[in-house]
Amino acid sequence: MSRIVYVNGAYVPEEDARVSIFDRGFLFGDAVYEVTSVLNGKLIDFPSHMRRLTRSLSELSMAAPAGTDELLAIHRELIARNGLSEGGVYMMVTRGAADRDFVFPPDGTQPTLVLFTQAWNEVRSPEVENGLRVAFVPDLRWGRRDIKTVQLLWPSMAKMEARRLGKDDAWLVEDGMVTEGTSNNAHIIDREGRLITRALSNSILHGTTRASVLRLADEAGLTVEERSFSCDEARAAAEAFITSAGHFVMPVTEIDDVVIGDGRPGPLTLRLRRLYMEEAARTAL
Amino acid sequence: MSRIVYVNGAYVPEEDARVSIFDRGFLFGDAVYEVTSVLNGKLIDFPSHMRRLTRSLSELSMAAPAGTDELLAIHRELIARNGLSEGGVYMMVTRGAADRDFVFPPDGTQPTLVLFTQAWNEVRSPEVENGLRVAFVPDLRWGRRDIKTVQLLWPSMAKMEARRLGKDDAWLVEDGMVTEGTSNNAHIIDREGRLITRALSNSILHGTTRASVLRLADEAGLTVEERSFSCDEARAAAEAFITSAGHFVMPVTEIDDVVIGDGRPGPLTLRLRRLYMEEAARTAL
Repeated sequence: MSRIVYVNGAYVPEEDARVSIFDRGFLFGDAVYEVTSVLNGKLIDFPSHMRRLTRSLSELSMAAPAGTDELLAIHRELIARNGLSEGGVYMMVTRGAADRDFVFPPDGTQPTLVLFTQAWNEVRSPEVENGLRVAFVPDLRWGRRDIKTVQLLWPSMAKMEARRLGKDDAWLVEDGMVTEGTSNNAHIIDREGRLITRALSNSILHGTTRASVLRLADEAGLTVEERSFSCDEARAAAEAFITSAGHFVMPVTEIDDVVIGDGRPGPLTLRLRRLYMEEAARTAL
Repeated sequence: MSRIVYVNGAYVPEEDARVSIFDRGFLFGDAVYEVTSVLNGKLIDFPSHMRRLTRSLSELSMAAPAGTDELLAIHRELIARNGLSEGGVYMMVTRGAADRDFVFPPDGTQPTLVLFTQAWNEVRSPEVENGLRVAFVPDLRWGRRDIKTVQLLWPSMAKMEARRLGKDDAWLVEDGMVTEGTSNNAHIIDREGRLITRALSNSILHGTTRASVLRLADEAGLTVEERSFSCDEARAAAEAFITSAGHFVMPVTEIDDVVIGDGRPGPLTLRLRRLYMEEAARTAL
């Protein structure tokens, strides 16, 4: 069955969902996005995604396409129309369509708003049982990774490189330190049980799941160190995991061909996942 | 009058020119492009643009949408249908449409091909008389600037920053050295009359006009040094200019608030522009 998607005010079958070739999202990568997870038909961490969207738009001097209430209503309408129980809703905002020019179009140009659903099952994913195997790939992305733009070619290429190496995903490396995963934040737990994760900066995405998990870890009494960690530290970790809206808390059991711990998802990782999933279910909208 | 543009095999009015919201050019910046200048209805440096397109596609493991002869025919058809005398033809190739996934879609996915014309007049541009004023802006682009992708948000933002500073354009700076302009290569001529320009690498676009102008400079007896130059060297230059398919050879008369030479387009710059324009007219297709 064809999905119903949303494009600039209209709910249309996905085959008919089109934008102008002059859209700046298409010509310049001049667009930002959010992916909100759906569990049992409800939205996870929606207010956090909206806060980040607002920040991304602000950093790019881009107009908001609609208010939070209206965007929430569109999310819910798409979930209902597509009967989505588990998966996610992708939302993208571009600076709109204008004749091609590096100079931004005039204020008042109508932003483009696109949303669509994707069905997936991360709750009972086999990856949770086995953990992910990740490869190191150099981080060649631009300098404003804190803005969630659609300039995603390098993350996509890095994921392909990881697959070529027979792994599930890549951890990106800059100056010998891990920045993050291709579309997720990277975390390790050292042999003293400390959760180590890169501090927020322009070098990484400010993950919504990352923020929740760090808070839950702190509340659970774990020591959380927000600092950069090296490839060597990652290989020597007792546990490792990624966080993302799509994967929640996902164990990593192999890094750069080195088995992490005993090769099974770590106990603290699984505890954090459980805590996150409980809170997510409780606060879903 | 509305332009006729080309989208995936069809010539359509620009208002009807649309692509799927699932196009990877829209969702991932997974697309490359070329802009070929048109003078007197003829294409400048077309073979060079085709060679670079082929290289860009190859670096991204992306399929070619059509052969060179067919692409040339589409360029000419658009020039004819739009009665274009002076301006350019924009050509963009994406990896095609597929449901959103960082993993590339399967081989055989149909690439998207989009072309449109833009009318402009660079031959008698007032900027040639006065020269451009450029500001230094940090270069925050990704690490594969040699691939001509549509991930152009930073160049666009840098151009806006230059405008905010009251200048015409930006020269991007990394580690104290100039990389290039926002959509052009940057060159200086020092007080000994040497043309200094950054060597080719992943840090800059391999400009088609740059290549022709360096060859013409060498043939004209100028000393050409292909090496990085600093912001200090740029400010102390006797002459400066940019090259691009759209601007050919364009004088720069102010850099970072410092007047270059006597503030007028430099004699060697204008000589190179003349040599380039003569050859361009002679070899246009």
